Amino acid sequence: MPHEDCIFCKIIQGEIPSAKVYEDDHVYAFLDISQVTKGHTLVIPKTHTENIYETPAEVAKELFARVPKIANAIKDAYNPVGINLLNNNGKQAYQSVFHLHIHLIPRYGQEDGFSLNWDARPEEYTSEDLQQIASDINANVN
Amino acid sequence: MPHEDCIFCKIIQGEIPSAKVYEDDHVYAFLDISQVTKGHTLVIPKTHTENIYETPAEVAKELFARVPKIANAIKDAYNPVGINLLNNNGKQAYQSVFHLHIHLIPRYGQEDGFSLNWDARPEEYTSEDLQQIASDINANVN
Repeated sequence: MPHEDCIFCKIIQGEIPSAKVYEDDHVYAFLDISQVTKGHTLVIPKTHTENIYETPAEVAKELFARVPKIANAIKDAYNPVGINLLNNNGKQAYQSVFHLHIHLIPRYGQEDGFSLNWDARPEEYTSEDLQQIASDINANVN
Repeated sequence: MPHEDCIFCKIIQGEIPSAKVYEDDHVYAFLDISQVTKGHTLVIPKTHTENIYETPAEVAKELFARVPKIANAIKDAYNPVGINLLNNNGKQAYQSVFHLHIHLIPRYGQEDGFSLNWDARPEEYTSEDLQQIASDINANVN
């Protein structure tokens, strides 16, 4: 069911225009209007789900099943040096539209408009720490 | 089949130790030894596949089907403010191990060690440009 006031549901319904890359029964793929790099595409499930936490396994499955073929289409069209896939959940994690979406960001080199800061490592962990963290998470797998 | 000289295949086989978060017939999840943030987890398919381009739909499907439950386990264990999922393909796109892996990076605020630079937008695109790009990619979907 489309979710009222969800811009991506409106895009799927054709109520808001988009530059469509691919569509089938389960997913809709279209260009991010911001185009961090050329060919920057969003792949979304037709089923409205706010974020990864709330996504049923069946929806996740059908969504990601289409990602390799869309990534290959971007590769074949523009021959990037790589591609980053990104899914943001939560406002402080850069989510701005609350309908699950995977960014496919083709890369054209170091200075192409996309980069990560992710080696800051404010803390170091011993292997005992790591075992404890893994165990904390594992205990919460349902 | 495990791929010779693949460090992640060796982790799956138990030949190299890891802080295991989850395992089933299709996937293996363990802590990234770097821990960009606390609970930083890698989810990988047991089937060796180098990157998203080479991943069969069936492998992609089973892999991503498990991601919501692992993300929820991290959430339940550590109550992060958000979570970023990241998959890097190609050396210049930050891939360092050539066995497909999805990073689950829980977020604890703006200064937690992970951030993106992705609003540089070196070029602006007209809506005709966007339609052309979408059409270029769509023509390559197989």
